[in-house]
Amino acid sequence: MAGHMTPEEFRQYGRQVVDRIADYLAGVEQYPVRSAVRPGDVRAQLPASPPERGEPYDDVLADLDRVLLPGVTHWQHPNFFAYFPSNTSGPSILGDLLSAGLGVQGMVWATSPAATELETVVVDWLAELLDLPAHFRTDSRGGGVIQDSASSAALVAVLAALHRASGGKVGADGITGRYTMYVSSQTHSSLEKAGRIAGLGAANVRSVDVDPETLEMNPAHLRALIEQDVAAGATPALVCATIGTTSTTAVDPVRAIGEICREHGIWLHVDAAYAGVAAVCPELRWINDGVAEYADSYATNPHKWLLTNFDCGVLWVADRRPLIDALSILPEYLRNPASESGQVIDYRDWQVPLGRRFRALKLWSVIRWYGAEGLREHIRTGVALAQELAALVAADPDFELRQHHPFGLVCFRPLRTDALELMERVNSSGQLYLTHTKIGDEVWLRMAIGSPATTSAHVATAWETLQTAGKRISPGRR
Amino acid sequence: MAGHMTPEEFRQYGRQVVDRIADYLAGVEQYPVRSAVRPGDVRAQLPASPPERGEPYDDVLADLDRVLLPGVTHWQHPNFFAYFPSNTSGPSILGDLLSAGLGVQGMVWATSPAATELETVVVDWLAELLDLPAHFRTDSRGGGVIQDSASSAALVAVLAALHRASGGKVGADGITGRYTMYVSSQTHSSLEKAGRIAGLGAANVRSVDVDPETLEMNPAHLRALIEQDVAAGATPALVCATIGTTSTTAVDPVRAIGEICREHGIWLHVDAAYAGVAAVCPELRWINDGVAEYADSYATNPHKWLLTNFDCGVLWVADRRPLIDALSILPEYLRNPASESGQVIDYRDWQVPLGRRFRALKLWSVIRWYGAEGLREHIRTGVALAQELAALVAADPDFELRQHHPFGLVCFRPLRTDALELMERVNSSGQLYLTHTKIGDEVWLRMAIGSPATTSAHVATAWETLQTAGKRISPGRR
Repeated sequence: MAGHMTPEEFRQYGRQVVDRIADYLAGVEQYPVRSAVRPGDVRAQLPASPPERGEPYDDVLADLDRVLLPGVTHWQHPNFFAYFPSNTSGPSILGDLLSAGLGVQGMVWATSPAATELETVVVDWLAELLDLPAHFRTDSRGGGVIQDSASSAALVAVLAALHRASGGKVGADGITGRYTMYVSSQTHSSLEKAGRIAGLGAANVRSVDVDPETLEMNPAHLRALIEQDVAAGATPALVCATIGTTSTTAVDPVRAIGEICREHGIWLHVDAAYAGVAAVCPELRWINDGVAEYADSYATNPHKWLLTNFDCGVLWVADRRPLIDALSILPEYLRNPASESGQVIDYRDWQVPLGRRFRALKLWSVIRWYGAEGLREHIRTGVALAQELAALVAADPDFELRQHHPFGLVCFRPLRTDALELMERVNSSGQLYLTHTKIGDEVWLRMAIGSPATTSAHVATAWETLQTAGKRISPGRR
Repeated sequence: MAGHMTPEEFRQYGRQVVDRIADYLAGVEQYPVRSAVRPGDVRAQLPASPPERGEPYDDVLADLDRVLLPGVTHWQHPNFFAYFPSNTSGPSILGDLLSAGLGVQGMVWATSPAATELETVVVDWLAELLDLPAHFRTDSRGGGVIQDSASSAALVAVLAALHRASGGKVGADGITGRYTMYVSSQTHSSLEKAGRIAGLGAANVRSVDVDPETLEMNPAHLRALIEQDVAAGATPALVCATIGTTSTTAVDPVRAIGEICREHGIWLHVDAAYAGVAAVCPELRWINDGVAEYADSYATNPHKWLLTNFDCGVLWVADRRPLIDALSILPEYLRNPASESGQVIDYRDWQVPLGRRFRALKLWSVIRWYGAEGLREHIRTGVALAQELAALVAADPDFELRQHHPFGLVCFRPLRTDALELMERVNSSGQLYLTHTKIGDEVWLRMAIGSPATTSAHVATAWETLQTAGKRISPGRR
């Protein structure tokens, strides 16, 4: 019987794994946040060849502890501040476990109707939770879909935009003219990557100036670039506005950008990968000003700050037709009466891959377990902790605080020591983990708060660690 | 505290979910294979709006039973023969559960070294298990990477091929000339989709003739098309040869195709999404004839027939440079000493999305639990059952058997009744689930065997069901 794991063995090991995860998450603080292994350390401890005979699962779990965990950087650690959070949570893990256990393929409605219909329901729920416009909901011309990431969401938005801008010509004949898209220096790199993948080339991903202070996209320069490109015979296909940039959580002026897109008939994609979920809180819905009126597509990732483990990004479109037309191909073996009736959604036509897991289960688990109330409280906790950190930074004359910190990210820089040296010192201590960015020529440190495990005490201790480390670095070495 | 699930609650519900999965997989046969719900049935039973307050997890699990399971088509059912299998298995589920629990992001080496290094180890292991060439291994110029699907693997192969064919011009300036790629009518639709996504357009995805009997790509026609396109000024970028086509598991002549690619300097991608894993068995390694000499990239999916739940597709390349050059973009916040040293792999540059789950854990769990021996036994069981089915079909004068069935797929057609009517009759009975394909104008039924749960008895009963149903359909209605 090929050594299949019996149901009894699965129960036994499954409980062990569940217990280990519970122990891991409860005790994650005991680990250094950032792994201290050097390149090749983990690999060197694993056999070069696969086993000929099967091994007991206990051995797998023992190697998890012995070999893998020292090589893990702990994203769920309360002192992990390095990147935007990648929240996991009990209900999300359980939802993902159910997905793995059921093992269904939801590529089209017919291959497992519940996978498609639950997804439609939860993305509609999330649109409501974020107060996104009604035309993003599936009972309108638009609709939502779970993608693996905001990168993939950006790519399919670019493809839909090219489809619309070219009247379907790009899909049929390829890129035969010059199509342009518009980002800023602060836009996530995945947009340039999407432009390159889609055949526009890096040269046609135009970089719009930002306000040097706020780092928000400059609409006047956007307009100037578009006019210049149109005059030169190019077809502008897409503008990406960002709500909460990766570097500093800047919020682009979506409304002003949208007006320009409307004038020129250009697709407006809004990348709110990190910050979009903050709109579960009414007091943070200002971030979406202009979205209802102007956005053709909008992406945010519950797998960042909304307690749903990776991968779970959501993309909404105001009109699903160009997206589906850009991505649909129907071979004979996928023909079925439900698809041909037009009464169902086949999400394979909303994404790059054909296959798809039952990812809706984890988002459903999360929304039901927490309720709107719990989700708001989680976001508010992160925002409040960021304000606490900002107050600590502001009170220290050895540091400069960057004023914009409406979400969970706080940027600051040491005034008497070298920022990168300070960062490396605290990161290699294993006590906390943060990253840096550059604004102009200045290096700023980024502390992104948002793990469910992070409390006031963690933030205060992290700040003390930074202060102390800063004092130990000789000012002369700045 | 935002209602986070406590470790004790997680242990309690986690055990419940593990038990449910054990019960589900042990008892999956009690369900109708194909869900009988109509469009909208599942959705209608779910609230239109999300809950304001969190709900007990018991309610979530109760709705799983009450609302979702009737809408699930059971891919793990022993009588699921409709598509290539999407195996799940105990060790795979546990590996995926660990991935969800650790919640790490392996986008670059530095963000969790173990996630990258374990992936390198397991894709190297798999290359060895399949006896793939040494230059696909990471200690050479090539290497392997886990993708979500063979569709995404095909897309990145096309991008690498375009990069190489254009000398980097496509990434920099976009598609400015005519680039072509070559598939056959039997190639998976994801290749045409990749060509459209990459900006080549459907018109430049050239369809090479197949042998009308074997459905294998005709190398002479491939050569003629290439020469014709080159003469017309186009740049051929990629040829896709398939090992085990979706429709009938035809195996293209990789060696003959490869020779033509070599002559013209064209990238050869081998799509062995379904059948590639069969090469764990030495007696099936004939399928890879020519791969070592000619393939620039090769994709197969452990998430189909190798006991690893979706998503886990593996792509190998003979030279990683064009792949990385086509996909790499390095923003400041991802700069780190490890990446800059060149000593590590950053898998984000091997794929479309930036983020990535710790998917290697499930493939590692599977390979260790089963060992090479167990994996071979699983494949051999599927092949043997397919031979049993083929013998049953061959013995029945009311059916015609298609002769080619070296893997788990058997194609046949009823001679006295309408194939689609027969299919719909058995599919709607819920007893088994199969699909159809067209060869020329003829409709053939496809029965794909490969679930760990399927035994001789299931195959025999399925065949009886088909025979009986065939007899009940009036011949006059053919």
